[in-house]
Amino acid sequence: MSSTFGTVFRVTTFGESHGRGVGAVVDGCPPRLALSEADIQPQLDRRRPGQSALSTPREESDTVRLLSGVENGLTLGTPIAMFVPNKDQRPEDYSAMSRIPRPSHADWTYEAKYGIRASSGGGRSSARETVGRVAAGAIAEKILRERFGVEIVAWVSAVGSVEAPDLTGNPMTRSDVDAHPTRCPDPAAAERMAAAILAARQASDSTGGIITAVCRNVPAGWGEPVFDKLEARLAQAMLSIPATKGFEIGSGFAGSRLRGSEHNDPFTMKGGRLGTLTNRSGGVQGGISNGEPIVFRVAFKPPATIGKPQSTVDVEGRPVVLEASGRHDPCVVPRAVPIVEAMAALVLVDAALIQNTRA
Amino acid sequence: MSSTFGTVFRVTTFGESHGRGVGAVVDGCPPRLALSEADIQPQLDRRRPGQSALSTPREESDTVRLLSGVENGLTLGTPIAMFVPNKDQRPEDYSAMSRIPRPSHADWTYEAKYGIRASSGGGRSSARETVGRVAAGAIAEKILRERFGVEIVAWVSAVGSVEAPDLTGNPMTRSDVDAHPTRCPDPAAAERMAAAILAARQASDSTGGIITAVCRNVPAGWGEPVFDKLEARLAQAMLSIPATKGFEIGSGFAGSRLRGSEHNDPFTMKGGRLGTLTNRSGGVQGGISNGEPIVFRVAFKPPATIGKPQSTVDVEGRPVVLEASGRHDPCVVPRAVPIVEAMAALVLVDAALIQNTRA
Amino acid sequence: MSSTFGTVFRVTTFGESHGRGVGAVVDGCPPRLALSEADIQPQLDRRRPGQSALSTPREESDTVRLLSGVENGLTLGTPIAMFVPNKDQRPEDYSAMSRIPRPSHADWTYEAKYGIRASSGGGRSSARETVGRVAAGAIAEKILRERFGVEIVAWVSAVGSVEAPDLTGNPMTRSDVDAHPTRCPDPAAAERMAAAILAARQASDSTGGIITAVCRNVPAGWGEPVFDKLEARLAQAMLSIPATKGFEIGSGFAGSRLRGSEHNDPFTMKGGRLGTLTNRSGGVQGGISNGEPIVFRVAFKPPATIGKPQSTVDVEGRPVVLEASGRHDPCVVPRAVPIVEAMAALVLVDAALIQNTRA
Amino acid sequence: MSSTFGTVFRVTTFGESHGRGVGAVVDGCPPRLALSEADIQPQLDRRRPGQSALSTPREESDTVRLLSGVENGLTLGTPIAMFVPNKDQRPEDYSAMSRIPRPSHADWTYEAKYGIRASSGGGRSSARETVGRVAAGAIAEKILRERFGVEIVAWVSAVGSVEAPDLTGNPMTRSDVDAHPTRCPDPAAAERMAAAILAARQASDSTGGIITAVCRNVPAGWGEPVFDKLEARLAQAMLSIPATKGFEIGSGFAGSRLRGSEHNDPFTMKGGRLGTLTNRSGGVQGGISNGEPIVFRVAFKPPATIGKPQSTVDVEGRPVVLEASGRHDPCVVPRAVPIVEAMAALVLVDAALIQNTRA
Repeated sequence: MSSTFGTVFRVTTFGESHGRGVGAVVDGCPPRLALSEADIQPQLDRRRPGQSALSTPREESDTVRLLSGVENGLTLGTPIAMFVPNKDQRPEDYSAMSRIPRPSHADWTYEAKYGIRASSGGGRSSARETVGRVAAGAIAEKILRERFGVEIVAWVSAVGSVEAPDLTGNPMTRSDVDAHPTRCPDPAAAERMAAAILAARQASDSTGGIITAVCRNVPAGWGEPVFDKLEARLAQAMLSIPATKGFEIGSGFAGSRLRGSEHNDPFTMKGGRLGTLTNRSGGVQGGISNGEPIVFRVAFKPPATIGKPQSTVDVEGRPVVLEASGRHDPCVVPRAVPIVEAMAALVLVDAALIQNTRA
Repeated sequence: MSSTFGTVFRVTTFGESHGRGVGAVVDGCPPRLALSEADIQPQLDRRRPGQSALSTPREESDTVRLLSGVENGLTLGTPIAMFVPNKDQRPEDYSAMSRIPRPSHADWTYEAKYGIRASSGGGRSSARETVGRVAAGAIAEKILRERFGVEIVAWVSAVGSVEAPDLTGNPMTRSDVDAHPTRCPDPAAAERMAAAILAARQASDSTGGIITAVCRNVPAGWGEPVFDKLEARLAQAMLSIPATKGFEIGSGFAGSRLRGSEHNDPFTMKGGRLGTLTNRSGGVQGGISNGEPIVFRVAFKPPATIGKPQSTVDVEGRPVVLEASGRHDPCVVPRAVPIVEAMAALVLVDAALIQNTRA
Repeated sequence: MSSTFGTVFRVTTFGESHGRGVGAVVDGCPPRLALSEADIQPQLDRRRPGQSALSTPREESDTVRLLSGVENGLTLGTPIAMFVPNKDQRPEDYSAMSRIPRPSHADWTYEAKYGIRASSGGGRSSARETVGRVAAGAIAEKILRERFGVEIVAWVSAVGSVEAPDLTGNPMTRSDVDAHPTRCPDPAAAERMAAAILAARQASDSTGGIITAVCRNVPAGWGEPVFDKLEARLAQAMLSIPATKGFEIGSGFAGSRLRGSEHNDPFTMKGGRLGTLTNRSGGVQGGISNGEPIVFRVAFKPPATIGKPQSTVDVEGRPVVLEASGRHDPCVVPRAVPIVEAMAALVLVDAALIQNTRA
Repeated sequence: MSSTFGTVFRVTTFGESHGRGVGAVVDGCPPRLALSEADIQPQLDRRRPGQSALSTPREESDTVRLLSGVENGLTLGTPIAMFVPNKDQRPEDYSAMSRIPRPSHADWTYEAKYGIRASSGGGRSSARETVGRVAAGAIAEKILRERFGVEIVAWVSAVGSVEAPDLTGNPMTRSDVDAHPTRCPDPAAAERMAAAILAARQASDSTGGIITAVCRNVPAGWGEPVFDKLEARLAQAMLSIPATKGFEIGSGFAGSRLRGSEHNDPFTMKGGRLGTLTNRSGGVQGGISNGEPIVFRVAFKPPATIGKPQSTVDVEGRPVVLEASGRHDPCVVPRAVPIVEAMAALVLVDAALIQNTRA
């Protein structure tokens, strides 16, 4: 009862990693938006496995098909259903694991919650579930871009202990981001990140990372206090992405070490509108966008699936040594960039449409 | 349209800082729970201003009154309305600020969103709004404690750059926490924190901080993938608290620097049930509680209201120097401890009741 | 978990018939609406008992107080809490009934559902619960009137077997309706209705009735297919009012006896816009308003509380004869008129604000 | 934003009449329910066109496919997506109608609401949209039947002015209902109904009708006062079905003509539990099931599409005579029986699962 996100622009995702496919239904999309599969496919392509030597060699073409809600290239205002068939529908690599819950995977918690779980792969806890989010996010982004001029760009700002310099002030684009397979737009840092990822793979291990996102041209006034404050919904959205462990906006955790006189963003006039000289707030005040760029960061843990042997126990508590044999990403952050963008878009478009109710 | 939180245990808060009062309505509370004002008042007392020399000397007794939903000391299963009258209902200190939006306050964004804002104080963006949350959270906590054995304890783990040692493994209680007015249960760190707060006040300045929370005895199986994963709802809940800038669960941002082999929590047998040897997951896997303590941290920025003069502009863009004259907290984290506990309780009780739908 | 109604304009009601009071919180009300208690009180006065010889002599002044969301006579866009204290807070008339569930009351079902119920009166199933709805509806009506020109007028069209002629085509106003204590604007029918009500009272009995409502100037385009079609939400709203047993829109049940060629509403040009020559549709097509008056009828059963002795059994199944001694309405429809109007207003304003999201 | 129904057991439908297909996503279905397409297909078969000489000769096989949420014949507790491809995806019969809104269809209101509408057929306002509801309802029914013993049976109780005798007290089954193509289980009335339908077709006209439904073995305690009372949700559910104009429960409109002493249902002991001697309440008191059969009736207008010429105007207001040429049902009630059952099941299963939150 929680595969739906949003109040007015509502997305419902469905599908398991090894079932017939994955998808989403978008309800509440404004009518008369030009939309076709070609608007959605690019972000799915950025998300799919096998894009570079840094990711899993699994091939998933992830071709989306619009099942409803669009006619002659225009949205009808009715629910937009989208479906991406799974290529690999048969249980293969995972059969042995059924009695050995994988450490730091959701095998055990799904079993505890539902008394059953998908026999192959992560089922609904797999990153494959995010296909529906990315598809829905692409629609949200189109509305944001065309009707509000909003731009969302995310990138990899850390892999393991390799950190990129702060680029949030730069006019970063998605092509800048995609210039390197790590999706870090700082070339020097990108090289070191690539090395860190390959070293992890070499060691049959994995590594975590951080994604930074900037949302530009968000007008002042979006976000719904008190429980749907913009940062609160962004936090929910980001922590709903598999493998995430943290979210911070603006100054974040570092801001907690500052004094008020260092942290406050004084106002100034910017081209006829009130703006702020600094942006430690990260584009929100009191849960409402203030017209400055919305800047946030999301922490991803290292993927739980590693080739290295792990000492653990099976469901009866008998000691076992587990070695994963499948093909897996040593680091998810490059592929998670479009997922972060999608979830940000879902939060923003919902806030935008709700704000319209006050028109 | 966003002052309601929860799916089954639903809380709606209301009230502005200088209006007639603040409160909440709790819908979906199970019937036959023993409940009176005495169950709610203690957490309100921990939240109220004027508790120690470290906080604002404003006196607010914050006495809660149950208006409905309880008869003869038992809940009826019907909505529970609670009201706390405001002592100070008249606009006083703030009149001059109406044309000068206070830096890093929500004055300007409320104006941008609604075209109007409360003339005194923060209105709905004030920390006073959290009175309703704390009252509702006290009910949630009672259910969690009595029906599920769940215990929630939060404390101040950092003030400015003063950090307490990691106490998440200790059997911390609320009396431990309340032993020092900083609400840091480590005596040495507490002393240094108190000094940091007083130094900030001395400098007519303010300081941020971090709160750590632990939820014990949460059974495996709570949390609703994919959008209402337990960590996602906790993140939303925490980022909906005024002045928060970050949330992390388990290993958090630091976890992103680890390798999978260092980060994974191997399983082990714990008193007849499957547990984990380490808890970098922070008590959740795939959005579902795994039976280990749920551990998270919340970053608070320094309060925006400072006595120090600030250079900013008024709504017409004319340079002004702003000096706050009111009585304000130099650091909110000691008083925010019960708010964090309340929001955690609201997330957990909702997850618990929803999990019942699968019974 | 169901005392909240609406998606964008959300009302949460609270309070039992013999507790401290009843009220509502309205979330999502547009900002800058002129609002004071004086806008709300008149509909509460039309709802309260003791208005005429036809109703119960119980005196309840039902004075509403705004607790939040309004400052200097304008809404702030924040939740509007309203409270009406109960005059009679002590259990009196009802004590004997605790072991004898009253036939066709909700005593037994509340007990079955919650394992507990209010010891006095109907608690939450009492018509007193509708005070909060009427207060919220008055705000909704003000928005509809001032921002959209919408007018809602309901009246009593039947009491027992006394039926008024069809007045839906007449330009009926609330003063027309209030001209007679029955709230039937046809004087001859009103007289016969009054006689029927007094005869029922004389016989220590009660009688049912029907309310007809017309919503004028609703623009085409309101209503959210497929599950929140305008007629679907109206039906929910009306059947949520105590004592209702039926709802029909436009041609209603009688329409099921017609042929399509008799039932269809042909289009015509009306002052520059497309309208229909007839209105058997009742102002909606496919769940969406079509610009014609929205016309519907609501059936109310006779009040369950009667002085006449009733043979029934107690909770152990022992035969008993029950005689109500309190002061009760022999017919609820005159007082239910503002409740029907309020619920219609809540449905319409929510649909109006949602339609704005497509702007 | 309104194609989702339910709080805990949530159904989202999608699809237009002439697009790629129609379907639904069910979120919140309990895990470990045995489920396959074979559980769903029978009700779809009862709904599809072309079942008998009384309905449209259009052939739609309506074969459902489960896309997610089920593995090895068991539900996983995750969203269940279902898809039924449309056979006829091309615009054909309707092209001329684009500038002539069909009287009493939703062409004009969809245009007014969305500024666009499906170019062929009714799009989302078509009865074809109900395919997703029936599929979801079949799952709901399976839960109700297997876990709670609840049985839902609906039948045609009137066609035009032909009325069947009251059969609500009889132990009617679906085979009784399906014994005659009218789905009226009274053979004599069924014959007259068939004649009425064929006469309407002969006259290139259509006819309305009424469906009666009984839900047996619903335990006392389901339904969520005050806005999600069981009858309120049933009313919403039924009025959300295309072509419905009225809903009544128990005594309904006729009950409004009775006195309380005639209408009240006295209690009695029934096999160890409290029951009522009569059932004018229709199985609910105060919005909560009371353990008696839930009995309600739904009025359907005559289908708007008729062969008979109709005088109307086009979008510019120019008089035109419209003659429908397609193949259409002269009466929808026989095929609407499984739709009514599906919507009742969706209401009941949601109420059942919510009631579990109080366990």
